[in-house]
Amino acid sequence: MAHNLQDTVALLERTPGALDELLRGLPETWTHHNEGGETFTVVDVVGHLIYADRVDWMPRAHMILEHGENKPFDPFDRRGHVEECRGKSLPRLLDEFRRVRAGCLDDLRALNLQPEQLELRGRHPSLGAVTLSNLLATWAAHDLTHLHQISRIMAHQYRDEVGPFGAFLGVLKCNGHGG
Amino acid sequence: MAHNLQDTVALLERTPGALDELLRGLPETWTHHNEGGETFTVVDVVGHLIYADRVDWMPRAHMILEHGENKPFDPFDRRGHVEECRGKSLPRLLDEFRRVRAGCLDDLRALNLQPEQLELRGRHPSLGAVTLSNLLATWAAHDLTHLHQISRIMAHQYRDEVGPFGAFLGVLKCNGHGG
Repeated sequence: MAHNLQDTVALLERTPGALDELLRGLPETWTHHNEGGETFTVVDVVGHLIYADRVDWMPRAHMILEHGENKPFDPFDRRGHVEECRGKSLPRLLDEFRRVRAGCLDDLRALNLQPEQLELRGRHPSLGAVTLSNLLATWAAHDLTHLHQISRIMAHQYRDEVGPFGAFLGVLKCNGHGG
Repeated sequence: MAHNLQDTVALLERTPGALDELLRGLPETWTHHNEGGETFTVVDVVGHLIYADRVDWMPRAHMILEHGENKPFDPFDRRGHVEECRGKSLPRLLDEFRRVRAGCLDDLRALNLQPEQLELRGRHPSLGAVTLSNLLATWAAHDLTHLHQISRIMAHQYRDEVGPFGAFLGVLKCNGHGG
C-alpha cells in the first residue's frame, strides 16, 4: 500500500533548514574531518544530498511515470558529490541544498500524484522492482540516514575529549552500517 | 589535555535551533512514535535534553569547581524527562529547550573558564574521576548521540514504506547501542 506522501514532503522540506541551523558557522573541527580512511566529512554529506536530489530522486520518479518497469534507473554514483563539492564552501553548499531541494519539491507537487500512481513500479538496477511510493519514502529516509551519519561523524571528533563518558554515548558505538 | 571549549559552545548553541527547524510542525507520524517497547519518542528525546540541561551539565560543572573529587555528582535519572514532558506539546518543549539551553550557556560564559580549570576533576557516581573538560565535551557529544537517536527513531517509522531500499539505509541497521 502507498504511504502518506504529505508526511514525506513535510520532512523533505525541513531538512535543508535543519542542516543550515546545525552547520552554518560551525568550526571546522566538526565539519571538515571524517571518520578515517575514505569516509565522508560533513561537507561531503551535504554535497551528496545535493547530488542525490539532482540526479536520483525526482529523475527516477519521472522514469517510473514515463517508462514503468521497461527501463531501469541509471545507477547512482556514490562519489558524485566530489564534483558537486569542488571549490565550494560549506555555506555555499547549504544555500545550494536549500535551492535544489525546493526545486525538487516544486516538481513533485506539480505532478499532483494520486494514490494509484504511487503504486506504479519502476526497475532499480540492483534491487529490481520498486514502487514510486517506495522511492519517495526512501528519499525522506535517506535524509535521515545522512543526519544519522552527520551526528556520528561529528561525535567521532570528540572520541578522546569525552574521556570515561564515552561508555554512555551510543553514537560512539555506531559502526556506520555502510552509511 | 583540555579540549577547545569554543568548539563545544558553538555546537551547544546550535542544537535547539536545528531541532526546531527539523521538528516544529512535523506530522506526529515522525514525532510521536517510538522504536517499540519502552523506547523514546522524538518528544521524549527533546524532554530528556531539557531535563539534562536543567539537572546535569552545568550543575555538575559547578560541583567540580566547588567540591572537586570530594563529593560525587548526583546520579542522573534517565526517566526524568517523563515529568519534564507531562502536558506539554512538542512546540512548547522546543521553546523551552531553546530558553533553558541559552540560560545554561550564559552561566557557562559567566564562569570565564581558563584552560587550567578545565583540568579540574570531579567524581562521577559510576565512572569515577572525570575532568571538567570531559564533562563539557560530553555535553556536546550528548546532543549528537540524541540527534543520532532522533534520526533513527524517525527512520524506523518508514521501515516498511521504503520496501527493498531498506538494504541501502544504514540508519535502519543501527541497533541503538543503548541510546
